[in-house]
Amino acid sequence: MAKTIARTLPGFMELLPEDQIKFNNMMDIIRKNYEKAGFLPLDTPIIESSEVLLAKAGGETEKQIYRFEKGDNDLSLRFDLTVPLAKYVAINCNNLAFPFRRYQIGKVYRGERPQKGRYREFYQCDIDIIGDGKLSIKNEAEMPSIIYNIFNELGFNNFTIHINNRKILNGLFEELGLTDTSVDVMRIIDKLDKIGFEKVCTELEKINISKPIIEKIVEFLEIQGETNEKIEKIEKLNINNEKFKTGLEELKEVIKYIRLFKVPEENFMIDLTIARGLDYYTGTVYETTLNDYKQIGSVCSGGRYDNLAEYYTDKKFPGVGISIGLTRLFDKLIELDLIKNKKTSISDILVVPASEEDMEYSINITSKLRENNIKTEVYLEDKKLKAKIKYADRQSIPYIVVIGEDERKENLLTLKTMETGEQEKLKIEDIINKVKG
Amino acid sequence: MAKTIARTLPGFMELLPEDQIKFNNMMDIIRKNYEKAGFLPLDTPIIESSEVLLAKAGGETEKQIYRFEKGDNDLSLRFDLTVPLAKYVAINCNNLAFPFRRYQIGKVYRGERPQKGRYREFYQCDIDIIGDGKLSIKNEAEMPSIIYNIFNELGFNNFTIHINNRKILNGLFEELGLTDTSVDVMRIIDKLDKIGFEKVCTELEKINISKPIIEKIVEFLEIQGETNEKIEKIEKLNINNEKFKTGLEELKEVIKYIRLFKVPEENFMIDLTIARGLDYYTGTVYETTLNDYKQIGSVCSGGRYDNLAEYYTDKKFPGVGISIGLTRLFDKLIELDLIKNKKTSISDILVVPASEEDMEYSINITSKLRENNIKTEVYLEDKKLKAKIKYADRQSIPYIVVIGEDERKENLLTLKTMETGEQEKLKIEDIINKVKG
Repeated sequence: MAKTIARTLPGFMELLPEDQIKFNNMMDIIRKNYEKAGFLPLDTPIIESSEVLLAKAGGETEKQIYRFEKGDNDLSLRFDLTVPLAKYVAINCNNLAFPFRRYQIGKVYRGERPQKGRYREFYQCDIDIIGDGKLSIKNEAEMPSIIYNIFNELGFNNFTIHINNRKILNGLFEELGLTDTSVDVMRIIDKLDKIGFEKVCTELEKINISKPIIEKIVEFLEIQGETNEKIEKIEKLNINNEKFKTGLEELKEVIKYIRLFKVPEENFMIDLTIARGLDYYTGTVYETTLNDYKQIGSVCSGGRYDNLAEYYTDKKFPGVGISIGLTRLFDKLIELDLIKNKKTSISDILVVPASEEDMEYSINITSKLRENNIKTEVYLEDKKLKAKIKYADRQSIPYIVVIGEDERKENLLTLKTMETGEQEKLKIEDIINKVKG
Repeated sequence: MAKTIARTLPGFMELLPEDQIKFNNMMDIIRKNYEKAGFLPLDTPIIESSEVLLAKAGGETEKQIYRFEKGDNDLSLRFDLTVPLAKYVAINCNNLAFPFRRYQIGKVYRGERPQKGRYREFYQCDIDIIGDGKLSIKNEAEMPSIIYNIFNELGFNNFTIHINNRKILNGLFEELGLTDTSVDVMRIIDKLDKIGFEKVCTELEKINISKPIIEKIVEFLEIQGETNEKIEKIEKLNINNEKFKTGLEELKEVIKYIRLFKVPEENFMIDLTIARGLDYYTGTVYETTLNDYKQIGSVCSGGRYDNLAEYYTDKKFPGVGISIGLTRLFDKLIELDLIKNKKTSISDILVVPASEEDMEYSINITSKLRENNIKTEVYLEDKKLKAKIKYADRQSIPYIVVIGEDERKENLLTLKTMETGEQEKLKIEDIINKVKG
């Protein structure tokens, strides 16, 4: 028979079991922390009507969409989890309790030109808190506490949540007479961490911002100091613009509550350069960097927005949300070899019958271990003992229990710890306690 | 602004949070049991190259595929999890330890005409054990033990795993001189539970099977009795066909080991009428019925196959697998109101500050509860106390902690159990113990 060449498309992540276990471990930590803060699960379809999904989209986004027809339907694959959330809230608002706190972890699709670290199918892990008409600013302070808990539990400690407020920058631009170009200025500033101050100045000049104004912007963006110092310095500028003042008050309030939500001082900072590309955000914005690996870019970003579902309804749903791009993050962590010493097996124990005569006893032991919630495999194939042990070794299963005639007669099991090679004769109850402990 | 009407496509399940929690609870139980038996996680792309995905497909399946072009690529959405597994094993066989035990829980796509209970996007929850060249029959006995554990933990007790062996039916057909029509005969018998014996006979007549032969088939399929009785009766038929005899020996071996894997006698049975439509299966086949709700059809099916990846490679990968169609199952269980008394909230506790003055203290308590792995929400909006409590009630959050001036001064918290209305003044440690316990 002619064979088809088996292959997986470029830009689609497909992992070997060892890496898949690490990936799932990260996803489980994220989900656990989202649920610990009371976020409700949501699972929307990957396929939506193009009309609904692209109500807002345009430009670059639209070009990347996987869009196709099936029967008479014009369909698209979701490219983020925010548009489906907006649709969901617009449809179900009468059946939801507000503030509506939801998490969604799922795959999204963007037909980008595939290159290293760029995926066409990738996981986003989102939380959002949606208000019905209004939403307290305190929610904007809760987000960093969740980011903190997640990255802490993922084993990072040197990370910083960068916080800014869009009203501050927009107010400053108004004050500097840049209202008409504020979107462009914001977009250029957003590239600061990628292209540096000099190039930002060049780009600002290109859109006809005058030198003295550019200097004022740069001076502002470069304000240094600890959190409280920065706030003092900003206040001392005495910028008498309403938007700016509102933004500053909001920032102060958010900082106050971030501290109450117990985010350590070293894990957050005011960063006046954070703009976030999307014009969607209206208040607090976040980015998160792993400080020893800044080349990764932001690992968790988000912000406050005023109107989630404006393309579907006149009702106003303000919200705040953050997103972790897990596929890209995982890819980078693997590349930098930053996921270490993590469990890479599912099974805790491999039960190994020395010969076919030991099979019944071995299956019996396996059932008992499973009943006690020990993840257990039994080696059922008719192979040499060496091959059976190699199987455990190859999968990094931490313990094996070899069962032979002696074990059956004595009703004592030999537990071998694979890492140390240590062997002990134990009762099954002792094995259960040891492996669980 | 002109609004787009927000809608979700027909045939795509999208749940309200309460139902999503129930759905996820079922999915977690399935995943936990798959992992308890040492199955490794796999996550393959939803989009594959059409050439790869459809190497084997044809007929009805092919018509249902979501297939489209993007750039120069001819792409398709996966319609099951078996073909992606075959592709994965063909690509990665040199990097996998065999027997390769994998589970995959994910969405698959079939563009069926949408009707009640039929979904175009639905979850399949699969496990397979793949051998490299050969695979012990004992693996076919382990599958029912996993099915048993899952449906038991899902809260069903009156369910039966129906077991047959394709070699028995094929051998019988050979013996009856029906080798050439065996695929058709199998397909007709597979409809037995849907259309009944009479119609099966009519259909067999239509393909020119003679009356005496049909009588022999029916007589065989109607063999009654407990498991051991059935085996005896089949043996007494003295059918002297090699395939038949092999199938019977296999069935006896599988039954022996199913018992060793501790599946209770009342939860499995030999069912000679189980054929499974797919010609893919070569040995043991399974179907599972909830006996009080037989109208649901099989809730978990699968079987033994000889050659997983034959469309991609000359290497032989025999395997055995089962699949739970979770979306359809969930839909039926909701319709029959069979998911009861399950937790329908994520949060264990809602912390309610009586007034703005109580906010700081409340956030502090929330952080402490979360640090102790209590799923906790704090109500941050500026609303009347009644509205705050209504929010907890609407989401079925089991406990609330209302914090006012007294609580702050006494450093004692009022825990209200929502179901009973009972209120207690407790220290935070006692609350943690009570809620965890």
